[in-house]
Amino acid sequence: MNTFETYESEVRGYCRNFPAVFATAKGAWMTDTTGRRYLDFFSGAGVLNYGHNPDKIKQALLAYLMRDGITHTLDMYSEAKEAFIRRFQDVILQPRGLSYKLQFPGPTGTNAVEAALKLARKVTGRDQVVSFTNAFHGMTLGSLAVTGNGFKRAGAGVSLNHTASVPFDGYLGSEVDTLDYFEAMLVDNGSGMELPAAVIVETVQAEGGVNVAGTAWLRRLREITARHGIVLIVDDIQVGCGRTGHFFSFEEAGIVPDIVTLSKSLSGYGLPLALVLIKPELDQWTPGEHNGTFRGHCPAFVTATAALGFWTNTLLQDAVTSKGDMAVEQLMRMVKAQGLDATVRGRGLIQGVAFSEPGLASAISQACFERGLVIETAGIDDQVLKLLPSLTIKEDELQHGLDIIETSLRAALSRDLRKAA
Amino acid sequence: MNTFETYESEVRGYCRNFPAVFATAKGAWMTDTTGRRYLDFFSGAGVLNYGHNPDKIKQALLAYLMRDGITHTLDMYSEAKEAFIRRFQDVILQPRGLSYKLQFPGPTGTNAVEAALKLARKVTGRDQVVSFTNAFHGMTLGSLAVTGNGFKRAGAGVSLNHTASVPFDGYLGSEVDTLDYFEAMLVDNGSGMELPAAVIVETVQAEGGVNVAGTAWLRRLREITARHGIVLIVDDIQVGCGRTGHFFSFEEAGIVPDIVTLSKSLSGYGLPLALVLIKPELDQWTPGEHNGTFRGHCPAFVTATAALGFWTNTLLQDAVTSKGDMAVEQLMRMVKAQGLDATVRGRGLIQGVAFSEPGLASAISQACFERGLVIETAGIDDQVLKLLPSLTIKEDELQHGLDIIETSLRAALSRDLRKAA
Amino acid sequence: MNTFETYESEVRGYCRNFPAVFATAKGAWMTDTTGRRYLDFFSGAGVLNYGHNPDKIKQALLAYLMRDGITHTLDMYSEAKEAFIRRFQDVILQPRGLSYKLQFPGPTGTNAVEAALKLARKVTGRDQVVSFTNAFHGMTLGSLAVTGNGFKRAGAGVSLNHTASVPFDGYLGSEVDTLDYFEAMLVDNGSGMELPAAVIVETVQAEGGVNVAGTAWLRRLREITARHGIVLIVDDIQVGCGRTGHFFSFEEAGIVPDIVTLSKSLSGYGLPLALVLIKPELDQWTPGEHNGTFRGHCPAFVTATAALGFWTNTLLQDAVTSKGDMAVEQLMRMVKAQGLDATVRGRGLIQGVAFSEPGLASAISQACFERGLVIETAGIDDQVLKLLPSLTIKEDELQHGLDIIETSLRAALSRDLRKAA
Amino acid sequence: MNTFETYESEVRGYCRNFPAVFATAKGAWMTDTTGRRYLDFFSGAGVLNYGHNPDKIKQALLAYLMRDGITHTLDMYSEAKEAFIRRFQDVILQPRGLSYKLQFPGPTGTNAVEAALKLARKVTGRDQVVSFTNAFHGMTLGSLAVTGNGFKRAGAGVSLNHTASVPFDGYLGSEVDTLDYFEAMLVDNGSGMELPAAVIVETVQAEGGVNVAGTAWLRRLREITARHGIVLIVDDIQVGCGRTGHFFSFEEAGIVPDIVTLSKSLSGYGLPLALVLIKPELDQWTPGEHNGTFRGHCPAFVTATAALGFWTNTLLQDAVTSKGDMAVEQLMRMVKAQGLDATVRGRGLIQGVAFSEPGLASAISQACFERGLVIETAGIDDQVLKLLPSLTIKEDELQHGLDIIETSLRAALSRDLRKAA
Repeated sequence: MNTFETYESEVRGYCRNFPAVFATAKGAWMTDTTGRRYLDFFSGAGVLNYGHNPDKIKQALLAYLMRDGITHTLDMYSEAKEAFIRRFQDVILQPRGLSYKLQFPGPTGTNAVEAALKLARKVTGRDQVVSFTNAFHGMTLGSLAVTGNGFKRAGAGVSLNHTASVPFDGYLGSEVDTLDYFEAMLVDNGSGMELPAAVIVETVQAEGGVNVAGTAWLRRLREITARHGIVLIVDDIQVGCGRTGHFFSFEEAGIVPDIVTLSKSLSGYGLPLALVLIKPELDQWTPGEHNGTFRGHCPAFVTATAALGFWTNTLLQDAVTSKGDMAVEQLMRMVKAQGLDATVRGRGLIQGVAFSEPGLASAISQACFERGLVIETAGIDDQVLKLLPSLTIKEDELQHGLDIIETSLRAALSRDLRKAA
Repeated sequence: MNTFETYESEVRGYCRNFPAVFATAKGAWMTDTTGRRYLDFFSGAGVLNYGHNPDKIKQALLAYLMRDGITHTLDMYSEAKEAFIRRFQDVILQPRGLSYKLQFPGPTGTNAVEAALKLARKVTGRDQVVSFTNAFHGMTLGSLAVTGNGFKRAGAGVSLNHTASVPFDGYLGSEVDTLDYFEAMLVDNGSGMELPAAVIVETVQAEGGVNVAGTAWLRRLREITARHGIVLIVDDIQVGCGRTGHFFSFEEAGIVPDIVTLSKSLSGYGLPLALVLIKPELDQWTPGEHNGTFRGHCPAFVTATAALGFWTNTLLQDAVTSKGDMAVEQLMRMVKAQGLDATVRGRGLIQGVAFSEPGLASAISQACFERGLVIETAGIDDQVLKLLPSLTIKEDELQHGLDIIETSLRAALSRDLRKAA
Repeated sequence: MNTFETYESEVRGYCRNFPAVFATAKGAWMTDTTGRRYLDFFSGAGVLNYGHNPDKIKQALLAYLMRDGITHTLDMYSEAKEAFIRRFQDVILQPRGLSYKLQFPGPTGTNAVEAALKLARKVTGRDQVVSFTNAFHGMTLGSLAVTGNGFKRAGAGVSLNHTASVPFDGYLGSEVDTLDYFEAMLVDNGSGMELPAAVIVETVQAEGGVNVAGTAWLRRLREITARHGIVLIVDDIQVGCGRTGHFFSFEEAGIVPDIVTLSKSLSGYGLPLALVLIKPELDQWTPGEHNGTFRGHCPAFVTATAALGFWTNTLLQDAVTSKGDMAVEQLMRMVKAQGLDATVRGRGLIQGVAFSEPGLASAISQACFERGLVIETAGIDDQVLKLLPSLTIKEDELQHGLDIIETSLRAALSRDLRKAA
Repeated sequence: MNTFETYESEVRGYCRNFPAVFATAKGAWMTDTTGRRYLDFFSGAGVLNYGHNPDKIKQALLAYLMRDGITHTLDMYSEAKEAFIRRFQDVILQPRGLSYKLQFPGPTGTNAVEAALKLARKVTGRDQVVSFTNAFHGMTLGSLAVTGNGFKRAGAGVSLNHTASVPFDGYLGSEVDTLDYFEAMLVDNGSGMELPAAVIVETVQAEGGVNVAGTAWLRRLREITARHGIVLIVDDIQVGCGRTGHFFSFEEAGIVPDIVTLSKSLSGYGLPLALVLIKPELDQWTPGEHNGTFRGHCPAFVTATAALGFWTNTLLQDAVTSKGDMAVEQLMRMVKAQGLDATVRGRGLIQGVAFSEPGLASAISQACFERGLVIETAGIDDQVLKLLPSLTIKEDELQHGLDIIETSLRAALSRDLRKAA
């Protein structure tokens, strides 16, 4: 680790919580250079929904590389991109009755978000965008301006403008429908809130603390935005690609966003890839108006095409639901058993345990790591233990991880008691 | 191509100029799905300095994938990243007496630029950044604000602030040292130009029209920024990694920037990867202050490490110089032979022919494509034919391409004549 | 009126509602060039709290002019300013136990607001300012950014930044304490609302529709801002100088703002004058950091000094209360008598009748004007009839005006009926 | 002065350089509370072009006040405003063939500038405004953003955006036409300078150091802005109303701006008044889109109307020219006599002496004050002694002031020598 401490910037973060040098990985397991194995409940922050290096995808990738398939094409046409587009059309869009146009921006989530915001502003001719408390959309200036985290925002070094942050579902307690507030501001031309170009929302705020938007709330948000001619952008970068069960996280609510952003698990193999889905009538880009060097990353098209094999039937979707239920049940039991003031929340295989005791989630995460489980925290104060196993994790692996969490929870609590004593 | 026209967004650009569906590629050659071969003088906009799918790098990549090397790690430690850091230290930084810290942002150029701008603003506590006329630094809001292209800027849909654009070297004619202007504004507290946090510069503006900054100008810029406590950022994304001869494009001028951004050819194989080099005293990041999902893209670390094999001796650097000279000589000859009002400019293997006749460069590019050569235009009015062959191109391949250019130039001119007649 | 229509800009507004050419005025009455007299329930939008051309003030002004008292001094010392400062100290600040420093900005309200915002930002080193829905603080860019009115904001032609608008007291209905929302956003570092430099508030939003902040709400706002180190600015430009009874509108709530802005009735005679009151510890201006040509308008100092004669005892304050009660009682009676869905609200001699029927307030205002009463509407949809008589109006004059309102209300309603028929 | 030091804000400035308490004033003379008289070469920063309390204007003002002419009308019609509009039409606009519409904003210069900028942005639909190095346009955020002074700009506490500062005439030396630079940036869509809504310019930068724009430069600026559809705003607040000879400072160049701002000496008596002149086709305001409480300050209309009496013939204009020549001649002689490296520059009765020796102008100003002459400095480093006597000053008074300057210059130099010794 000396190499990293000596030569790498102080900005590095996760490595401080999970101090191992990883070498190989397969399925739900990672192995470090000393041969130690770790069960992965983190999945690269949502990139590895199908586990590490899944064989079917790997074979497709190796075959492509071995036959010298073209690697990099910007937005020139390629066989690999064509295959992906056709497959995405056949397996994802067409069966769901969706007619989005596909834009491939630079291959990171924040590139997709920046493209979506630009397009919404262009199409409406308006410049304000509304985002939600505790939202996370990325680190480049446009995306950061719609991100709630004050520490990250301060990193901008400039004021972040043309945005307004309004309360997410549940932010003001369960009795308050926060859209009452949003709509009151919207219809009042004296409110100081301008009619926005777009509203950008995550259906489950992953980084923000596993905050779940209810289906009624999402439907009302869709209704309000439609009525006022506001572009509704669903940022499905972290909780799309099956994380909540359906391929798109918004399917359960039965809504159709105007723009959808995807990245993270899209390539299915950890290769950078991003996608913006655009309703045809909003596809008002001028050629080249938004670009990016790595928007034609063909190996990622290849793996993404292979990954769509998981979506030709409902097996994975069903498994996510049942494994999610299994996790929720046990987490609720653990919390109750320890008499903790904590909430279990999430959808499918993104689940969070929000503890009221400061520092407890971090202590559990650390205790888990010591026991061979990689699991991170979320929320502005790291108050939420966030479970993000691969969707393909086996039940016994999931059980093993939950057991480690339980043991670690007890250990963290007794450590706390010892400190208090 | 029907697939693309039906389902892909209107934003696509290059494919309109180079209408082929590419399937495989090797060295300096690309092959489309019909089996037609194209010589590549474009190199994926500077991503493919070592040619398509170079075998040594390919073998390293395949080996890594086959043994299930971990693919995606965010900023956790990995064997692949460690190997890259050590190799970069040994082959690039140490021999040049440079002591930069390494930050791995999201794997696209604009991510690196955004990180650099944030850090400069943080370190100085100032918010303005000075960039140059016809600069190109990326499409996300922070990078776009330091990009000169009015069409791209308008795409932002919001005003782009906290920046000032000043004339690049040669912008006001050869007799005017544009730094006189910059310095006059800087030292005058009544100028309306605030002391900037940073100046960001490309030593050769590639997208902007192959505009070359002179070494004296670069040295003076370094001197002015140093004297005023301004962070000097060299964006070496397109012309670094050997494009001008040396690994870094600023080496010839003998200057040491405070921050350097790299991407494009860094991975050596077309895989997304970016790097920010930071003088140790400026590495004032708080852990996690800037992040990005794909900042631990291990296959790209593997190929980038292998690519550094090109830099253990000066063979490549010398070849760039000699092939660059060969190109310049013939381009100048062609221009002269046709009695054209055109300028040949560039450094190493980025060369541009700036035509005064509107539309001519585009017509030549199109004529070249018809003859099996991929070559793009640059400059705000596409007035510059831009040669960007791989650095490893063979001399006979280079000659073949130059011959196609000459034929195409004649064809474009005669087409012009026919139109005029 | 031909002169105005031919030569004056289309921007003119009030003259369209009150189409008379005014020539002279005295007390509560205005006379036009044809000799027609109008009772004034508008008071120049709050400038004429002591009526038109009150004799005592007039004599002081004439005497000063006749003896060639200096007229204009910028911020050089003058006898006239000295007299005002001493008198303001003796009559206003000292008796109330207030120790504000006095800044004389340019003589308009928006100048005072801009100075206040600048200072709050300087002192805190933060840039965001929180304002309230339906706030009105002025038309220059800094003040406009904290003004709620969407039509006025759009007039800026640029995006208005560094501000956030939050709900004023009562905005979400009587059961919701809107400060719950503000405080929730404030304490949550993930809310997307940055810790603001300042909160700016009117205790009664005059232009915004005669919205009254409750004393408990104001106290809580003071408590929250104090706890978080946020500068509390009370903009008392329209409802200070006795409009609500006390000299300062915030006295009733028993709070002490950090900065207070005054203008409008400060000079007591319609002469432009503005004042910023600053807690001594916040008076961190560098000499000349904010200036303005007409900040030493001596005739206005003279009249302002004379006007303070109204504040050496509580006669005026008591009269405001009793006349306010008289107006409220009769307005409520009228509303009830007509069975209207309308609310009477206000404090002291700013009273509004908010009608739910669109257009009714404007129709009444027009009917009043036809009957010789000048009275304006307020609120984003002009839904509020706004009574703003001079504080010195005689009871029979007040009664006369109320009678005209009643007649006009009936006329407007019957006109409505006719239209409906 | 104790009153001021105890109770007034630290922001006060001029009083620190001219520490006297002024009581009365007449013509070119001010008298303090001790009876000491001062000759005035400052004229309230350009407000008192006709001297202090000129009798003819005074009589009109007194008559108006005595007969209870209405004082304050917002933008309702008034007899006083009508008279002013007619007189301005007859005496100023019609004889010059100008057809401007008149907008009365709030009565300070910065209000006029903010209105002009808003309108230019509205009419063009663009948001950038170009201003010049060392420009001064006011202290509210919109005006401050087009002001060059870095100290004043920093006072904003927020970043000042939507503007670009380009070099004023002569900024880069006498051989460089700075409009070459502006035009190069303007026509190049890759320059990073967006097509601006407006250019705002002072024909003589008064605060900025008495920098004079040449007539050829102004004509070219008019031609460039016309050709590109850019609104040309001449801010004639300080050097209009006859300061340079003609009523408008731009008459000599023979250009017609699209918008003109006036204030300062417009009322002719030191009373706050401002005016925006707008070409009829640009008068696209919606009623009430920009407003301001004191935009109907009738006593100022009365004095402004009376002041126009100075413009019914060319006597004043001719006198300004001859007195200006007299000042220039003697100032040049003084400079030469002392062998100083100094430049005399200006037009009409705004003249500056720019000294290369730091601190000298301030030392002279101080020495003058000790000798009974009020004269200020200008320029970012207070390097310019700025003569701004009233236009109506008598020749012997002017001579007296010039004599004091000469004595003070010698005194300041010998003080310098003593310090050096």
